[in-house]
Amino acid sequence: MLPYYLMFQEEDHLAGLYAASTVVSYSKKEKILRSYAGYETLYIVKDGVVRSFYTDEKGVELTVNLLKPRAIFPLSGYLSGKENLYDFEAFTDTTLYKAPKEKVKKLIYKNATLSSYYLERFAQAIEGYVIRSRFLANGSATQKITSALLMLFRRFGKEVRGQMIINLPLTHQDIADLAGVTRETVSILLGMLKKEGIISTKGKYLTILNSDQLSLKASENDDGSLLNLSF
Amino acid sequence: MLPYYLMFQEEDHLAGLYAASTVVSYSKKEKILRSYAGYETLYIVKDGVVRSFYTDEKGVELTVNLLKPRAIFPLSGYLSGKENLYDFEAFTDTTLYKAPKEKVKKLIYKNATLSSYYLERFAQAIEGYVIRSRFLANGSATQKITSALLMLFRRFGKEVRGQMIINLPLTHQDIADLAGVTRETVSILLGMLKKEGIISTKGKYLTILNSDQLSLKASENDDGSLLNLSF
Repeated sequence: MLPYYLMFQEEDHLAGLYAASTVVSYSKKEKILRSYAGYETLYIVKDGVVRSFYTDEKGVELTVNLLKPRAIFPLSGYLSGKENLYDFEAFTDTTLYKAPKEKVKKLIYKNATLSSYYLERFAQAIEGYVIRSRFLANGSATQKITSALLMLFRRFGKEVRGQMIINLPLTHQDIADLAGVTRETVSILLGMLKKEGIISTKGKYLTILNSDQLSLKASENDDGSLLNLSF
Repeated sequence: MLPYYLMFQEEDHLAGLYAASTVVSYSKKEKILRSYAGYETLYIVKDGVVRSFYTDEKGVELTVNLLKPRAIFPLSGYLSGKENLYDFEAFTDTTLYKAPKEKVKKLIYKNATLSSYYLERFAQAIEGYVIRSRFLANGSATQKITSALLMLFRRFGKEVRGQMIINLPLTHQDIADLAGVTRETVSILLGMLKKEGIISTKGKYLTILNSDQLSLKASENDDGSLLNLSF
């Protein structure tokens, strides 16, 4: 799927942990872990995608992250000594490993390859969150949606017969939850992007036809000035 | 100052790096590294505090982070393979170590203690950014400012004669840059917090007299409902 998949092809440092873990399955939309509920185990994504989100006081959900295979949750919360602040649910049908949290921590901390690997993932997450908070704080709806599409593309992009698709089934509501806008706004904007030949859709799958144009839309402010952000 | 200061008191794994580094000094407000400028060295904070920020198209600055001793920058950008997106400047008079970026990376990746240490710092940063993006996206001005004060308190808090002060000189503009609101709004709110006996100020230093009340204000929405966030 993505580079980090390949990194571990020959030597899987998580193998010892997998062997000592329980495998559990969840159906799409099923709740895995609720915010502020205690937990004794960490979850490692084996197959599928897990969504973390919170629900604001108006009942609006904001997707915090979409977790891919090898992601461990709630890892940053655990390592920073905080409560788990989010709900986690299966975004697609999902299989997870479960292992005692102390055991996972020890394994990561002892193994330089593993700790460097998660250090890079955390570094990417930090950069992503900072960019995202910039859009959430100040961006136009167009910027919020196009930047969400670019992030999905970066994380779930896959070349299929010469075309770049986002390899994840997505409803308009899913995109709205990520971008922090309404579903209606997403529908209108996706329609415009299709007309302009920037994206195309097939069922729940989205193809990026012109990523340069999409980047430009994410960067362009209402007054025509540009945000100098590299995706 | 804070726990991570003490962690390394007896055995400093960064010592080898310090020895191979150049020491450079910057005066308060002096620019250290500009966004999108190339860099061949990473900076390690020796003494003082460094501010990272970006300036939006309207010329408004938003503080991304305040970096304390032992922080390395722009580390998460470098480890995630991205350009440096922010400006860095001396927030107080500051002394920094400079060392080749590849050398810093090798040292961190080889040394399990160091990589675990930065893993925990990154984990804390991620949790902080997620909470922050929540306030930036949806919070009231009161929530933005009180949550900024709570974060400053968590990171720069120090007990002095039985009182908890934020051990960092702060202007109203500094707090505004962190909270993403105007200086005027900060001045009004700090006045209210003083009247209510929640904080007191002495010059540029702020004392938290009632952290429970401050947390409550950060959590309380306009309609009286509560955000369930733990600081």
